[in-house]
Amino acid sequence: MASRNLGFDPVAQAREVWRSRGWGNAATGMAAITSIMRAHQLFLAAANEVLRPFDLTFARYEVLAWLAWNADCGQLSLSQIGERLQVTPATVTNAIDRLEADDLIRRLPHPSDARTTLAEITKRGLKVVGEATEELNAKVFEAVQLTEDEMEMLFGLLVKVRVEAGDFSRR
Amino acid sequence: MASRNLGFDPVAQAREVWRSRGWGNAATGMAAITSIMRAHQLFLAAANEVLRPFDLTFARYEVLAWLAWNADCGQLSLSQIGERLQVTPATVTNAIDRLEADDLIRRLPHPSDARTTLAEITKRGLKVVGEATEELNAKVFEAVQLTEDEMEMLFGLLVKVRVEAGDFSRR
Repeated sequence: MASRNLGFDPVAQAREVWRSRGWGNAATGMAAITSIMRAHQLFLAAANEVLRPFDLTFARYEVLAWLAWNADCGQLSLSQIGERLQVTPATVTNAIDRLEADDLIRRLPHPSDARTTLAEITKRGLKVVGEATEELNAKVFEAVQLTEDEMEMLFGLLVKVRVEAGDFSRR
Repeated sequence: MASRNLGFDPVAQAREVWRSRGWGNAATGMAAITSIMRAHQLFLAAANEVLRPFDLTFARYEVLAWLAWNADCGQLSLSQIGERLQVTPATVTNAIDRLEADDLIRRLPHPSDARTTLAEITKRGLKVVGEATEELNAKVFEAVQLTEDEMEMLFGLLVKVRVEAGDFSRR
């Protein structure tokens, strides 16, 4: 990923502004959330770049990956995909349309519920998602410059944040 | 923020898939990055909800906030805004167009460089950004359920990640 040549951390600078304005109680939360948003941007751009040769975006890759890794338990319904991937029905439909046009997945009618549509990954889809994952692993996921312990800590802190924000519930 | 009623952590589940496929080296990085992406989604949705009564999105709020907090040092050029906010020129132009139509900012010609456009916040813009910030602070930034130490740790880990990914450089 290319450096922006910004010689200072804009998030740290914003935090100083917050403190100087008397918003000290919100300053660390603002800095943490803004950092999450900036990190997201960077990784999304990196992932999309790696996926471009596969004619995939990260959004479509995620749908494909869920279908691939859940193939053992049968097909997934479109609404299950949306729930797991935290996206709206319209976004799932768009992704599924494009993936189907590219012969990476196929739609199937639900055997007993006419209102539900299932999706199943094709042989070609399995091949593409396998190759795309190898590339993502090598160029994005293994390229994170944190120690294993630091990554576990980051993951754990974000689990806390995500549970509080309603991403999933611990049962 | 509403819970999705998902009774398991899809990121932890994906990490198990990664490990079972022999991609253990990439599993923790994948989990950390995917967590960042999901946390981003949740906070962006929460921020946009808080900002809706102000007729702002988080993207436009950020532009407005940068102009407000940098008002002492004079106006910012559109390209400086893009650099700081990590967005493309087209996105800055869109945001500036809309903010100008809403009388929150105004465009100014650069005194000595005809190719550069400056933006300046209006009195109304200052009032709106102040009110919007109070709401964001109370409902989003102060609502993060982490201790101050945990938030500092999260911020610090993300600084490392962001520097490596080229978000800014330490000089």
